[in-house]
Amino acid sequence: MIGGVLQGHVFIATSLDGFIARDDGSIDWLNAANAAGEDHGYGDFIAGMDAILMGRETFRTVAGFEPWPFQLPVLVLSRTQDSALLPAWLAERVAIVRSLPEATALAAARGWRNLYIDGGETIRSALAAGLVRSLVISRLPVLLGQGRPLFGPQVTDVEVRHVCTRSFPSGLVQSRYEWP
Amino acid sequence: MIGGVLQGHVFIATSLDGFIARDDGSIDWLNAANAAGEDHGYGDFIAGMDAILMGRETFRTVAGFEPWPFQLPVLVLSRTQDSALLPAWLAERVAIVRSLPEATALAAARGWRNLYIDGGETIRSALAAGLVRSLVISRLPVLLGQGRPLFGPQVTDVEVRHVCTRSFPSGLVQSRYEWP
Repeated sequence: MIGGVLQGHVFIATSLDGFIARDDGSIDWLNAANAAGEDHGYGDFIAGMDAILMGRETFRTVAGFEPWPFQLPVLVLSRTQDSALLPAWLAERVAIVRSLPEATALAAARGWRNLYIDGGETIRSALAAGLVRSLVISRLPVLLGQGRPLFGPQVTDVEVRHVCTRSFPSGLVQSRYEWP
Repeated sequence: MIGGVLQGHVFIATSLDGFIARDDGSIDWLNAANAAGEDHGYGDFIAGMDAILMGRETFRTVAGFEPWPFQLPVLVLSRTQDSALLPAWLAERVAIVRSLPEATALAAARGWRNLYIDGGETIRSALAAGLVRSLVISRLPVLLGQGRPLFGPQVTDVEVRHVCTRSFPSGLVQSRYEWP
């Protein structure tokens, strides 16, 4: 485990067959649930976070959003790129880190305790490093057949604790798991 | 769609990351939930079925069970083998079919309406053929990291209808989906 008191938290939607995006990154299949006007708890979740850690791919997607959708500081995990990829107007809100240990060191230095981990590759790295302490997974009632998976290979079984599950009229089923 | 009034039904357990067995076929990770003494509804489910369709691999596993665990007729889907693989004492309870259409033709000839579809490859074939009308999926709170997946590639999105979800003290979360 890395991070000491630092805890990683995942809040993510997948298809019934475990994909978080299509092969081209698109998440159009999430629209039905998003359009249903249901509160899936993202606001409550984000209110408990101190910062967001995401990968370069996820950052590229959200960097195109206007207005900038995050109130929280954002760390972007990018092995190959430095802060030069940052538009000037984001430099105060976003920091580039080259590794997960660098991210957790920076988080610890700033006194952050709860990190929202986003993006498939970043989530898998954080899972492998033992940083993830909770996972809220929302499954949509659609089979995509192919795409970008949430989970990946790992060395050993990881047993988690099921905390609660709720479902919504849109067909979204949301379960919360915590690491023992 | 094939089968007309014939409907396929899936009742299966997966890991949180979507595997139905380890790479070697073992399902030891199901023991915790099985040992919990919970009624996950298999009895009620099977009471509504007329016959079971499974693949050769699944048949090989269950053929080793004593006593023979099924009251219902069993169809074994096997492209490469004929009835010679059947022990004599099973010949009245089990029929070998070479294809899904052969299975559904036989089922129709015998007046069966509800087929329990079991085994990963057989389930994926039945999904692709439009035979599956309901899926009860029970997710266990464990990440295996690798193994035999439930779902596989498919050509188009398949939207299903979420009917209900319930969870159990063991951490098993069971959702029922139906095809529109």
